[in-house]
Amino acid sequence: MKSEIPPNTVARLSLYRRLLEAWLEKGTTHLYSHEIASMACVTPAQVRRDLMAIGYSGSPSRGYSVDALEDSIGRFLGSDTVRKIALVGMGNLGRALATYFVSRAPRFRMTAAFDNDPRKTGRVIAGCMVHPVEAIPGIIPAEGIRTAVLALPPESAQEMADTLVKAGVKGILNFAPVPLRLPGDVFLENRDVTASLEKVAFFSGQPREGN
Amino acid sequence: MKSEIPPNTVARLSLYRRLLEAWLEKGTTHLYSHEIASMACVTPAQVRRDLMAIGYSGSPSRGYSVDALEDSIGRFLGSDTVRKIALVGMGNLGRALATYFVSRAPRFRMTAAFDNDPRKTGRVIAGCMVHPVEAIPGIIPAEGIRTAVLALPPESAQEMADTLVKAGVKGILNFAPVPLRLPGDVFLENRDVTASLEKVAFFSGQPREGN
Repeated sequence: MKSEIPPNTVARLSLYRRLLEAWLEKGTTHLYSHEIASMACVTPAQVRRDLMAIGYSGSPSRGYSVDALEDSIGRFLGSDTVRKIALVGMGNLGRALATYFVSRAPRFRMTAAFDNDPRKTGRVIAGCMVHPVEAIPGIIPAEGIRTAVLALPPESAQEMADTLVKAGVKGILNFAPVPLRLPGDVFLENRDVTASLEKVAFFSGQPREGN
Repeated sequence: MKSEIPPNTVARLSLYRRLLEAWLEKGTTHLYSHEIASMACVTPAQVRRDLMAIGYSGSPSRGYSVDALEDSIGRFLGSDTVRKIALVGMGNLGRALATYFVSRAPRFRMTAAFDNDPRKTGRVIAGCMVHPVEAIPGIIPAEGIRTAVLALPPESAQEMADTLVKAGVKGILNFAPVPLRLPGDVFLENRDVTASLEKVAFFSGQPREGN
């Protein structure tokens, strides 16, 4: 089932889960799909489809149990187990992402960071030991890391991505402002911040009719 | 025409343009659509469609003039004029984004930054003066800023977004890990970093068949 689920569904489930956690802290025990939908800014039908996609059988008549639903999504996303992440590039963006993940994504463990700057390697930055990039082929398989975050300048992104994939990485979150060429069995999520800013600036500069 | 162009086309044009600039520096004068496509990891047909969408008439038989094409895309994106950006939230991510935009997105001007932490306000951080959030209703219209980047914790994101929109902002790039409810005439680009990481971790944890 997992392999057929659309990436955007996984992203929405991640959001639902964080919303459910916030409700749990507030002591909410049951929620209807339309309440979840309203907080997530999607339609109730979308919420029900997404929950059906993970085979979750709630009882919408009385509303979903927040506790059980949060737990089901967590197990589906695999975040009931530790998920190791490698971060490549400890420049401004890389360091900020490391700090961000530590504070906002506690279910991920930044197992190793890599940089080619000797002033950064051998040090712990944002709670994460920084290794030279030459150590990638050794550390990635030894730690069983399958997920990497790239925060590199465009020049070195493809080479580093190739090195990571050769070392066993199966998914890359790419913040380098260049597209990457990867094997079909490696999941790639591009986050070109400049392109996003161009997009927003472009559409904020002119009148628009609705979204 | 502008109002009908799809956001993803704008993002690709932004990428083409950065690729063309790199070629210009290398002294390349002409390129075929398949060469642009190959660097951008899209199909040649996609490149031709995107360039037609901006009404650019090249001469694909001899290849596009890199200089003229770069110039046309720039004019279309509006980056031949200064585009003012406001950055709200000068925590780790906000500071990194400011530094990133200064170094990687020189065609944007970080006109003003805002934070509610008195230890940050009144100082210049990453080349950008940081004002208290109370100054948003005054500075945004005075500077004619229409584009804002949100790098805030989830709790304060919606309130800040409302304040920005009331002040005249028409486009928001949102890095806060919560959805935002905005008027239909405001362009919103959500960049939920945690959801992206969940997505990549999810699909890197299992065998997949192709992309």
